Amino acid sequence: MAAVRIAGNKFVIIGGASLVGSATAAELLDHGASEVVLLDNFSLGSDAAIAHLKDHPRLKLVRGDVMRVSDLLRATEGAAGVIQLAAFMTLNMDRDPYAGLDVNIRGVQNALEACRANKVKKVIFASSNAVYGYGPGVKGDLVESTPFHSVGAPPAAILYGATKIIGEQLCRDMYRKHGLDYVVLRYSTVYGERQHYRAANALYIIETLDKIRKGEAPQVFGDGSETKHFVYVGDLARANRMALESAATDVAVNTSGPEPITTLDLVKLVTELGGGGPAPEFVGNDGKVRLTSGGAFRIAHEEAFNAIGWKPEVKMREGLTRLIAWLDSSNEAKP
Amino acid sequence: MAAVRIAGNKFVIIGGASLVGSATAAELLDHGASEVVLLDNFSLGSDAAIAHLKDHPRLKLVRGDVMRVSDLLRATEGAAGVIQLAAFMTLNMDRDPYAGLDVNIRGVQNALEACRANKVKKVIFASSNAVYGYGPGVKGDLVESTPFHSVGAPPAAILYGATKIIGEQLCRDMYRKHGLDYVVLRYSTVYGERQHYRAANALYIIETLDKIRKGEAPQVFGDGSETKHFVYVGDLARANRMALESAATDVAVNTSGPEPITTLDLVKLVTELGGGGPAPEFVGNDGKVRLTSGGAFRIAHEEAFNAIGWKPEVKMREGLTRLIAWLDSSNEAKP
Repeated sequence: MAAVRIAGNKFVIIGGASLVGSATAAELLDHGASEVVLLDNFSLGSDAAIAHLKDHPRLKLVRGDVMRVSDLLRATEGAAGVIQLAAFMTLNMDRDPYAGLDVNIRGVQNALEACRANKVKKVIFASSNAVYGYGPGVKGDLVESTPFHSVGAPPAAILYGATKIIGEQLCRDMYRKHGLDYVVLRYSTVYGERQHYRAANALYIIETLDKIRKGEAPQVFGDGSETKHFVYVGDLARANRMALESAATDVAVNTSGPEPITTLDLVKLVTELGGGGPAPEFVGNDGKVRLTSGGAFRIAHEEAFNAIGWKPEVKMREGLTRLIAWLDSSNEAKP
Repeated sequence: MAAVRIAGNKFVIIGGASLVGSATAAELLDHGASEVVLLDNFSLGSDAAIAHLKDHPRLKLVRGDVMRVSDLLRATEGAAGVIQLAAFMTLNMDRDPYAGLDVNIRGVQNALEACRANKVKKVIFASSNAVYGYGPGVKGDLVESTPFHSVGAPPAAILYGATKIIGEQLCRDMYRKHGLDYVVLRYSTVYGERQHYRAANALYIIETLDKIRKGEAPQVFGDGSETKHFVYVGDLARANRMALESAATDVAVNTSGPEPITTLDLVKLVTELGGGGPAPEFVGNDGKVRLTSGGAFRIAHEEAFNAIGWKPEVKMREGLTRLIAWLDSSNEAKP
């Protein structure tokens, strides 16, 4: 049976000092996990992301690297489940593609090898809607069989998507050859409390709020009709937990929020929830790496319900309200 | 200018002790190259593949490894052009995916770094129609913007295709950041004299001939309507040379044969050209890794003509006649 009980068991989150890692740790601890290990090298992870958990008696923080098998072998000893989050995303992949390919491919190999050696029952691999690619080819309903589009996308975005495709196949290969149970969750762009500044799309929310708070006009790229499909971090933490608990194995499903939003609607919503501000300014491309979609698309999450019983609960209005409250209280807390 | 003159210049073929490598070396030597270096570690390459060239005065054979930058730096010194062929294909990727990902990704990184350091003028990267994926999603005209389909394909085939997507993007990244000119050729399945036994699809030709020569019925998997689109090795050697000579850079094009063929027609043609034999036997899947397509497809090569002035010349009847003649003479030559 591929179902793993949370209560009384040990779990390891690789790349755990992160937005998704910290929320997932809290979720697992709330459900009675005997120990949650956050393994992170703190090159992308941060103390800030896990400040709220630091003194939890069943949480263990390990400074370790997904590129060192010895670190993984030690951390995963006795673990019932492992969640592999450690990865470069597109912005970092652009800066250093060789290091990004290493972490996103060899890192997954290392994690899977450690899990196999330590007889871990189940692995949750954080994949991405990047497996459908970017650019004008991506439109309509994105379901799990949608192919990978690359024409019109920058190299770093294609590299990122391709590494997630490879990571998924490494899980499949390990399942077929050695019976290691796994569930792949294809995260859409995550946002929420303890939001970092590293993801091209989620960053846009914070940039917009920053503009508003300074009394400047928020920027909309293009005509604002472009779709984004975010997912709230708490919903993802629940998806990770449910993927462990479910009997599902050898499957990859989308985990997106309740519905997509256009860029213009997003900016309007952030402006409203941020307490009002100037009307948005429509601008051309500023040369930064931005991941453009072909217009209207929706990342379908119905298969996740079929496989692990999960569906998203937090709508953008609610999730953004929480994110903004957290940003405001963090700023107040600054000396 | 991205055009590289063949006459009087040095070229390096990485993974050169191979079907395509040896044919390309002969092509470049015939066009006046001052030196052609074949670099190979002979793990997949073979002496047999280059036996006909061994004593050529302008050919240099280097035992080296694409995973060792020092080997690449030494071999590419003073080279005007480099052709990067070294790769694991699907069958080997299935046996050892970790080694295959290393060679197909880090190997390309190493080759590009060596070319940049030695100011090589142009790189030709051997990609594959595997960037369109396999399985039922692949049908109709496959053009350069066709997305990557993976549903229904075995892990090794998806891994292979994804590494070729990554290799292409590493070339793009090196061009954008450092101005290294390149052309990506997406080879379709190669066949011809000095055919090896490592490619899932091309192997089928030899297996069929072997059966006929033993008086056994050749095997057709499924109903025989499945399409294959081969390319003759001499046509590819010409494509490599023309990609170097052309002004094209920062482009990826398909290089396929004149037209696709169904599995049944292929078996009939091999039977006829092999001197006749029993009618084919229709069988189910035998559990081997076979790359199945969704039925009728054609790999369009018109863009290759636009970019580098190339089109395929050798039809399957002619190419198979040459392959069979070579196989027969090799067998006769055996002690």
